[in-house]
Amino acid sequence: MGNKSRPSELITPDELARIIEFTKDKETPCLVIDLEKIGKKYDELARAMSGVKIYYAVKANPLDEVISLLRDRGAYFDIASRFELDQLLRLNVSPERMSYGNTIKKEVDIVYAYRKGVRIYTTDSRSDIEKLSRNAPGAKVNFRLLLDGSGADWPLSKKFGAHPDMLYTLVKFAKKSGLTPYGISFHVGSQQRDIGQWDNAIALVKYLFDALKGDGILLSAINLGGGFPAQYLKPTDGVPSYADAILGYLREDFPDGGLEIMVEPGRSLVADAGIIVAEVVLIAKKSEKNKMRWVYLDIGKFNGLIETIGEAIKYPIVFPDRDGKEEWSEAVLAGPTCDSADILYEDYKYKVPNNLKEGERVYILTTGAYTMSYSSVSFNGFPPLKTHILGGV
Amino acid sequence: MGNKSRPSELITPDELARIIEFTKDKETPCLVIDLEKIGKKYDELARAMSGVKIYYAVKANPLDEVISLLRDRGAYFDIASRFELDQLLRLNVSPERMSYGNTIKKEVDIVYAYRKGVRIYTTDSRSDIEKLSRNAPGAKVNFRLLLDGSGADWPLSKKFGAHPDMLYTLVKFAKKSGLTPYGISFHVGSQQRDIGQWDNAIALVKYLFDALKGDGILLSAINLGGGFPAQYLKPTDGVPSYADAILGYLREDFPDGGLEIMVEPGRSLVADAGIIVAEVVLIAKKSEKNKMRWVYLDIGKFNGLIETIGEAIKYPIVFPDRDGKEEWSEAVLAGPTCDSADILYEDYKYKVPNNLKEGERVYILTTGAYTMSYSSVSFNGFPPLKTHILGGV
Repeated sequence: MGNKSRPSELITPDELARIIEFTKDKETPCLVIDLEKIGKKYDELARAMSGVKIYYAVKANPLDEVISLLRDRGAYFDIASRFELDQLLRLNVSPERMSYGNTIKKEVDIVYAYRKGVRIYTTDSRSDIEKLSRNAPGAKVNFRLLLDGSGADWPLSKKFGAHPDMLYTLVKFAKKSGLTPYGISFHVGSQQRDIGQWDNAIALVKYLFDALKGDGILLSAINLGGGFPAQYLKPTDGVPSYADAILGYLREDFPDGGLEIMVEPGRSLVADAGIIVAEVVLIAKKSEKNKMRWVYLDIGKFNGLIETIGEAIKYPIVFPDRDGKEEWSEAVLAGPTCDSADILYEDYKYKVPNNLKEGERVYILTTGAYTMSYSSVSFNGFPPLKTHILGGV
Repeated sequence: MGNKSRPSELITPDELARIIEFTKDKETPCLVIDLEKIGKKYDELARAMSGVKIYYAVKANPLDEVISLLRDRGAYFDIASRFELDQLLRLNVSPERMSYGNTIKKEVDIVYAYRKGVRIYTTDSRSDIEKLSRNAPGAKVNFRLLLDGSGADWPLSKKFGAHPDMLYTLVKFAKKSGLTPYGISFHVGSQQRDIGQWDNAIALVKYLFDALKGDGILLSAINLGGGFPAQYLKPTDGVPSYADAILGYLREDFPDGGLEIMVEPGRSLVADAGIIVAEVVLIAKKSEKNKMRWVYLDIGKFNGLIETIGEAIKYPIVFPDRDGKEEWSEAVLAGPTCDSADILYEDYKYKVPNNLKEGERVYILTTGAYTMSYSSVSFNGFPPLKTHILGGV
C-alpha cells in the first residue's frame, strides 16, 4: 500500500475541499500558500524554543506576504544576497533584524549590506574575513563549521563551512582584523532526520568555545542553522520534539547559559503550508509487454519541483475522490517538458489509482518551500510557477 | 595539464578580446550570444545535409533574435509548448514551418495548435493519438521511437518514445483514427558522441517502415531528431562529419530515397555561440591540512548552469591574461547560492591558475544552449541570467 494512506494524515477532507474550491477556476500548475499555517508553525517554534532568536531563511519562500507575516510576528531574517536585503528593506524590515548568512559574498555585496545597516555576517574563509574587515568594521561575525550532513534528505556538501582546525584560526584572525567574533554556526543538512546530528555539532561548538577562551576570545552566540523537517512522504517527528532535544544538548554542553541562540528555519516553517495543484497531462505505456504507466503532470523539475533531483524530496500527492476501494499500482511520474531529465520519480515507484484519468487534478502537498523561486524563467516556453495566497483573489 | 590548452582552441585571442571589450561595462553574470556564429552553424548544417528539413529546437535558445535569424535563413521549427508557438507566431513564423515535437500535450494544447495552423505532431502513446484524432483531424503524425541514449553526455531516459512493438500498433491505430501517419522520429540523446547510434536507430526505422508497408501504410518521413554535438571540454567531431555518416546510413537502408528527412538540432546550432561572463566571488580552503581550493563564481546551477547536474556537461572555461607559465592546480567550482547542491564541478577537478584572484572575470564557453531559459526566476534573490547580443547595446 505504501504511500496510499499517508497523504490523508497530512490534510483533512475539509482542508482539501477548501483548496479544491479555491483553485477550481485557476489555471494549473499553481502553488497555493496558506499563510495561517506559516503563522502557526512560527508560533509553535517560538514556543518550543523560547528565548531563541528565529532567523527565517528567506530563500525558502521569498513571497512578500510570507515576509510581512513573519515581520509582524517579530521574526529575524537570514538573507542570502543583497537582492533579498533590498526586498526586506522594501517591506520595512529593519537591518538590525537581519543576518547575512551567505559565506559567498562579493566585496560590493558587503559594502552594500554594511551601508544599509546589516551588522551580523556569517563567514568561513580568510578571504571573506579580509573583505569584511575592510568594509564592515566591527561587525559581528558567525563562523560556520563544516559538517557532513549525514541523515539529511537534501544532501549537504562541503560547500559551506570550514573544519574546526581552520575555524579556530579564522576566529583569531577576525579578532585581529577588527571584527567582533560573535558565534559559531552550523547546518546539519536540510530535512535532517537524525536529531543526534545536533548533539555532535553542539559538542564541536563547545570544543571551539573552550579552545578560544584559552586565547582570550569569548564567543557569545550559537547559530543552530536550519534543518528542521517538513512533512514529506516519509514521516518525521514534529519540530517541538527536535526543539526539546536540541535545547537539552545545549544545556548539557553549556550549563551556564547566557548565550544568544539563533536558529535559521526555512523549510520547516513554510513547506507544509504549500500545495501545488497540477493536472495529469498524459498517461502512457512504453511497450506492449511492459505495463508500467508513465504519468505526465503539468509540473516538473523545471517549473517548481527541482528538489526531486536524485529523488531527494518525496512529495506526498493526493488524488481526490477515491473511496479506498480502487486498485492502485506503481507508476513513473514525470514533468511536461521535452527534457529527458524532467522526471520526478522513477526509482521510487509511486502508487497511483488505476482509474486515474488525463485532465484530472492532483494535489502535491508540502510544496511551500524551495519551489516557486527555483522555477525556470521559461524553459520550453512554460511560464514560472504561479502562486496564490489561500483566501486571496 | 588536462583542460588547460583546450579552451584556446575554441576561441581565438581576437574573439576573446572582443568579448572582453563588449562586456567590460556590463554586470556579471551575463550571457553573450554571437548571432553570426549561429548563422554560420545553420549554413554549415544546411550544406552538409542538403535537402534535409532543419527544424530548430526552440527550447535550446528561445531568444527572439535567434528565432528571427533562423526564420530569415529559411529554417523550420520544433516547438515544445503552445507558449513557444505563440512566440513564433508573434515573430511571423508561419505555422506550416512548425512541428509540435512534444509528445506530452494537453487536449487544449492540441486544440490551440491546430486552430493556429500547426499540422505536424509527434506522438508516442495511444491516448495522445486519441486526442489528436479528436482535435487535429488529418494532421501528419511522427511516431517517436524509444532509444536508450547510450553514448550521450546529457542522459536520455525512457521518458519519450515507445518500443517498436508498440509503435507499430500506434501507427495502425492513428491511421484508423483519421490521422496521417507521416514518419518515424527518434532522438539518440543530446551531445551524442557515438555516431553509430544513428545507424542502429535508422535500421530500426527501416524495420518499422517495412512492417507497416505490409499493412498498406506507407510512411514518408524520417525525423532524425537532435543530438548533434557542441564543443564542450571533451573534443568531438564537427557536425559535417556526423552529417556525412548519417546520410550514408540513410542511403544504405533507404536506397530508393524519396523520403522527407527532418532534423531537430538545438544545442549544435546555438551552444558554441554563447559565452557566459562570470566573476570569481570567493576562493576558500576548508581545512588547514587540505589544500584544495574552492572557487565560487557568481553563476551556478540555478542561474544558468543547470546542465552541470551530475557534471553531465563540462563547459570549457577561459582565464584571460595567462601566459602559459603560471602553475595551475585542481579546484572545486561552485555557484553563489546558499544551496549546498549548487556546485558545478567537484568529481571532475578543473585546473585553475594558482594566481586566480577574487573579482577576476572568467569566460565560460559553449553556453548558448540550455542556459538562460533554464535559469531560476529568483532563487536566493539572484535575478535570472541576463543576455546580450554581441554587437548590440
